[in-house]
Amino acid sequence: MSQELILNRRDLDFMMYEWLDAEALTSHPRFSDHSRETFDAVMDLSAQIANDLFANHNRKNDLNEPTFDGEKVQVIPEVKTAIDAFNEAGLVAAAQDYEYGGMQLPALVEKACMAWFKAANVGSSAYPFLTMANANLLLAHGSKAQIETWVKPMFEGRFFGTMCLSEPQAGSSLADIRTRAEPQGDGTYRLHGNKMWISAGDHELSENIVHLVLAKVPGSPPGVKGISLFIVPRWLVNEDGTRGERNDVALAGLNHKMGYRGTTNTLLNFGEGKFQPGGQGGAVGYCVGEVNKGLACMFHMMNEARVGVGMGAVVLGYTGYLHAVEYAKERFQGRRLTDKDPQSPPVRLIDHTDVKRMLLAQKSYVEGGLALVLYCARLLDEKRGAGVCDEDDADVLMDLLTPIVKSWPSQWCLAANDLAIQVHGGYGYTRDYQVEQFYRDNRLNPIHEGTHGIQGLDLLGRRVRQHGGAGMQALQRRLQMTTAKAAQRSDTAEFAASLDAIWFRLQDVTQLLLRNPNAEESLSDATLYLEAFGHVVVAWIWLDQYLACPENSDDAFYLGKRQACQYFFRRELSQVDAWLDLLGDGDRTCLDMSEGWF
Amino acid sequence: MSQELILNRRDLDFMMYEWLDAEALTSHPRFSDHSRETFDAVMDLSAQIANDLFANHNRKNDLNEPTFDGEKVQVIPEVKTAIDAFNEAGLVAAAQDYEYGGMQLPALVEKACMAWFKAANVGSSAYPFLTMANANLLLAHGSKAQIETWVKPMFEGRFFGTMCLSEPQAGSSLADIRTRAEPQGDGTYRLHGNKMWISAGDHELSENIVHLVLAKVPGSPPGVKGISLFIVPRWLVNEDGTRGERNDVALAGLNHKMGYRGTTNTLLNFGEGKFQPGGQGGAVGYCVGEVNKGLACMFHMMNEARVGVGMGAVVLGYTGYLHAVEYAKERFQGRRLTDKDPQSPPVRLIDHTDVKRMLLAQKSYVEGGLALVLYCARLLDEKRGAGVCDEDDADVLMDLLTPIVKSWPSQWCLAANDLAIQVHGGYGYTRDYQVEQFYRDNRLNPIHEGTHGIQGLDLLGRRVRQHGGAGMQALQRRLQMTTAKAAQRSDTAEFAASLDAIWFRLQDVTQLLLRNPNAEESLSDATLYLEAFGHVVVAWIWLDQYLACPENSDDAFYLGKRQACQYFFRRELSQVDAWLDLLGDGDRTCLDMSEGWF
Repeated sequence: MSQELILNRRDLDFMMYEWLDAEALTSHPRFSDHSRETFDAVMDLSAQIANDLFANHNRKNDLNEPTFDGEKVQVIPEVKTAIDAFNEAGLVAAAQDYEYGGMQLPALVEKACMAWFKAANVGSSAYPFLTMANANLLLAHGSKAQIETWVKPMFEGRFFGTMCLSEPQAGSSLADIRTRAEPQGDGTYRLHGNKMWISAGDHELSENIVHLVLAKVPGSPPGVKGISLFIVPRWLVNEDGTRGERNDVALAGLNHKMGYRGTTNTLLNFGEGKFQPGGQGGAVGYCVGEVNKGLACMFHMMNEARVGVGMGAVVLGYTGYLHAVEYAKERFQGRRLTDKDPQSPPVRLIDHTDVKRMLLAQKSYVEGGLALVLYCARLLDEKRGAGVCDEDDADVLMDLLTPIVKSWPSQWCLAANDLAIQVHGGYGYTRDYQVEQFYRDNRLNPIHEGTHGIQGLDLLGRRVRQHGGAGMQALQRRLQMTTAKAAQRSDTAEFAASLDAIWFRLQDVTQLLLRNPNAEESLSDATLYLEAFGHVVVAWIWLDQYLACPENSDDAFYLGKRQACQYFFRRELSQVDAWLDLLGDGDRTCLDMSEGWF
Repeated sequence: MSQELILNRRDLDFMMYEWLDAEALTSHPRFSDHSRETFDAVMDLSAQIANDLFANHNRKNDLNEPTFDGEKVQVIPEVKTAIDAFNEAGLVAAAQDYEYGGMQLPALVEKACMAWFKAANVGSSAYPFLTMANANLLLAHGSKAQIETWVKPMFEGRFFGTMCLSEPQAGSSLADIRTRAEPQGDGTYRLHGNKMWISAGDHELSENIVHLVLAKVPGSPPGVKGISLFIVPRWLVNEDGTRGERNDVALAGLNHKMGYRGTTNTLLNFGEGKFQPGGQGGAVGYCVGEVNKGLACMFHMMNEARVGVGMGAVVLGYTGYLHAVEYAKERFQGRRLTDKDPQSPPVRLIDHTDVKRMLLAQKSYVEGGLALVLYCARLLDEKRGAGVCDEDDADVLMDLLTPIVKSWPSQWCLAANDLAIQVHGGYGYTRDYQVEQFYRDNRLNPIHEGTHGIQGLDLLGRRVRQHGGAGMQALQRRLQMTTAKAAQRSDTAEFAASLDAIWFRLQDVTQLLLRNPNAEESLSDATLYLEAFGHVVVAWIWLDQYLACPENSDDAFYLGKRQACQYFFRRELSQVDAWLDLLGDGDRTCLDMSEGWF
C-alpha cells in the first residue's frame, strides 16, 4: 500500500486549513508554539510511520490472529515494531501537556494524524489508542500518585491500557455487572469476576497492562449507581516504580472474530486464584475517583472511545474508497452503453456511470464522515476556548453529537466498504485484495462501544434534552449560519432550502416524541431517529465544506467536493422525509409485534 | 444445527399449499403420479439429509477451504459423503423425466426441497446444483449422443458439471473472451484459453467433470455473436462410456474467498499443453448446438443459475434469521425502557422493540424473498401448462422477473444477515456463532452470475421491452388481481391503495426512461430502477401472501405473516417514492461526475 491509498492528504489539508482553520488555533496560548509547519511535520511523520510500519502487516495481522500457547499470547513481531516506533516518535502523548512530555497539539491536528494509523492498520493501532484513552481518563479522574505510577509509563510507551466493562452475562447492560471489589482496609481492593470483550487484554507487547475495571463494592446501591472504577494492573508496581508481583488477572480465552483480528480480544478472569499477590486471593485494585461514581468516570473514556470508533469507521471506509477508485481507473471492462461496436477497445470501470455512482456514494460517506469527526475534534479545541466560532456552545454540541459521530460512520462508512467490494467485482471477494478485510474489520464498529441501537436510545432518550436542550439550540445556530450563507448563492440555494426544511421537520418530530410520556412508545423508533438525525447533521457538514471551497474555482478537487455534496443532498438527504413520516406517524408495527409471531 | 434452524417448514408448507396450491399441479399429466404425500416425502427426505449430512460440516468447510497440493485439490471428506447421499436419494434428477431416472417433481416442489441444502451448507451444495444446471442446459440444447454420454452419468451422480464463462481479463464482458476453439475436421474442437472464477472446477469428488465452456471459433464475428459453446470434459470418455485419456484442462490456481469457502473456485487453463490427449495439444471440446449460437444456449443455464443465486441468497438470509430469533429468545440483556428498577430481573433481547424491529425486517426480507423465488418456480410449472392462473403469460413474466429474483434477495437477504449479526451483538461478530459466516457466504451473491449493476441494465435495457412489453403487462395483470382483492377488505385496503399508486408511478417512470433515445442517460440509474422495481414486486408478493392467510384467524403464524406484510408496506415500500423521484427527475449527479474529481 502506498500513502496515497491510506488517506488523501489533500483532503485532510483542505479540512484542516481551508475549512476548519487549524492555523487560527495557534493564537491560543496552549498552542502558541505551533504553526502550520509543526502541524505538517507531525502529519508527515504520522503518514510515514503508518505507511512503513503499520500498513506493511495489515493483511498479515488478519491472516495470523493472536494465539495462546497456554502460557503467553503470541502476536506477530511486526506489531511491536510498529507500536515502538509510534511511541518513540512521541505520538502517544501528542496532545498532552508539555509537563507529561507531550506536544500540546490541538485535538484537530492530533486526530488527523492518528487517522493515518487506523487507516493503515486498525488492528495494531488499537493498542496505543486504548492506552491513550486510558491515560486521558486517569489524567481527568486519577490522583496525582496514580498519574505518576500509571500514566507516565504509558506516555513512555512502557505500559499499555485497556477498558474492562462488559461481562459474559452483561454486554450492553452495565447495571448487571457482577464483578465485586472488596475493600482491604488499606485503601486497596481485591477484585473477583469475569470480563468479556477486552481488547488488548493480554499480550507481551508491553512491560505492564493497566486495566480500568468496573466493579461493585459490597453494600453499594443496585444498578449503575453502585458501580466503581478500579485500576487493576497485570503486574503490581513496587514503590520505586519497578515491576513487582504478578497480579491475579488471568486470561480465560481469546475471542475469534470476523475481522479486527490484529487486536487480541480476551475474556479475563479477575481473582480466580491463578496468581496470589501478597500470598492472598483476589486481583489487587485501586479505586479511581469516588466509590460508586465509577460509571461517570468511565464515560470520560467511553465518550472518547466513541469518537475513536467513529474515526476508525471513517478511515476504514476512506482507505477502501481510495482502493476502489484506483481499481476502477486501472481495470478495463465492457464498453459504453452507446457503443455497439464489439471491436472497439474496452473502457475502464470508471467510465461506467453505475461505477461512478458507487464511487460517489463512497466519497460522500467517507469525506462526510471524516469531516464530521474532524469537526468534533475542533469542538474539543473550542471547549478549551480556542475557538473562532461561538465557543460557549462547543461543550453541549459535542455531547449532542457523540452518538452521531459514533454511529453514522459505523453505518455509512461500512456501506462504503461494501461498495468498494462491489466495484472490485469477483476480485473484491477474494483475499488477494484488501477491500474484503476492510469490510470485516469495519463490521465491528456498529457493535462495540455501545451498539447502534444503544446510540439511538442515548440520543433520543438523553442527549437531545441534556443541558436543557442547549445542544439542539447550538446545532440549530450553527446549521443556520451555514444555510444562511448558502441561501445567498445560486449554486447552493437548493441545498440551503432542503436543509432548512428538513431541520424544521426533525425538530417537530423531536418535540412530538419528547411529549410522549410513555418511554416504550417514544423510544420505539430511536434507531430510525438516530439515522435521520445523522443524515441531517452530515448534510449540514457537507454544505459547510462546500462553502469552504473557493467560489467558481474549476480545480478538480473543489469540483469533486461540490459534486459529492450534491450527491449527498439529492440522493441521501432526499430519503429522510420518508423516515420522518414514519417517526411522525408513530408507526407501531414493531412495537406491536409479538414474540410468538416470529 | 437442528432442522428448525435451517428453514421453517411451516412457512414452506404455507407457501406451497396454502398460497401457491402445489396440489393443483397434480392434475397435470406430467405430475399425475404425485400427491401431497409424495411431495411431503421428498421434502422430509431433503430436510433430513440436509440436516444430517450438509449442516454438520458447514463451519468445517469454512475453516478448511480446499487446498491444492500440486497434484490434486483436497476437500474435507464430509463433502463427498453429503453429495453421495444426495445423489443416492435421486435428488439430482428430482425434476427430470422418468426416462432419465427422474421423479418428475414440479419445479415448485423441487426448488422448495433444494432450499434445504443451500440453507444447510451453501458450499457443499454448489457441486450438485451446478451439475443440475449443466444437465438442464444439455437436455435443452445438446444432441442425443451428448445427453447419453454426459447427462446420464450426471444423473447417476458419477459426473459433475461446471460453467466456464469469465476470463481473467473479461469478467462481466463476455464479448471480450479470448478462448479459441479450433475445428479439427472430425467434428471435434481443440480449445486454448484461460477461464476464471470456475466454481467446482477441479476436485476429486467425481469420476469426471463436464465443463461447459464459451469460446470463439476462428473467423467468427466479433463480440457476442461469435461465441460458441463447448463440452470440455476433464477426462475424455471412450466409446463404451469408460473413462479415457486426461483432457488438457489444468488447474492454474485456487481463489481464496471472503466466504463460500466450501466450493472450490478455480482458474483453469485449457490447452496449455500439460496434458496431450491423442498425443496432441489443446483441450478436446464438443460443440453444443450451432457454432456462434453459444451465448443463447448458455443463457439457458445462466437464467437458471440466476434463479439459483436468488434462492441461495434467500435461504442464507432465512437461516440467519432463524438463528437470530432463537438467540433473541434465549439471551437476557437489559430491562424494558419503562422499568427503572435495576433490581428487577433482566428481560430477553426479544423484549426490546429495536430487536423486534431488526427481526421483523429480516422476516420481511427472507419470507418475501422465499415467496418470490417459489412464485417464480411456480411460473416454471405454469410454462409447462400446469397453471391454475392465466398460464399464457408465465413465460414472459418469468423473463421479466429473472433480474429481480436474482438481485432482490442478493441485496436484502444479505441485509438480513447483517441484521442477524447485529442482534447477536459481540457474539455475532465471533466465529463461535454462525451468523458471520452466513454474511460472508451471502456477500458473493450480488457479484456472481451478473453483478447487481448488470441486473439493472438487463432489466431496464432489455427485459421491460422484451416480448413487446408483454412481461410488464403480465405483471400488471397479476398485481392488479391481487390489489383488486385486497381493496375489498378493510385490513388490506391501505396496502392495495399504496401498491396501485406506486405501480402506476413505476410505469410512468419506465415510459419516461424508455422514451429517452440516449442509452447512457436512460440507463444511468438502472440500478436504482432495479431496486425500486424489486421493492414493488416484493410488496405485491407480500400482499398476495397476506390474502392467502385465512381471514380473521388469530393463529400466531398468520398474525406474523400479516405483521411482516405491514412492515414491508409501511417501512420499506414507503421509501420507493423518493427513488422514483430521482429517476423521474433524471438526476445527472453520477452521470456528470468526472474521473479527475474523485
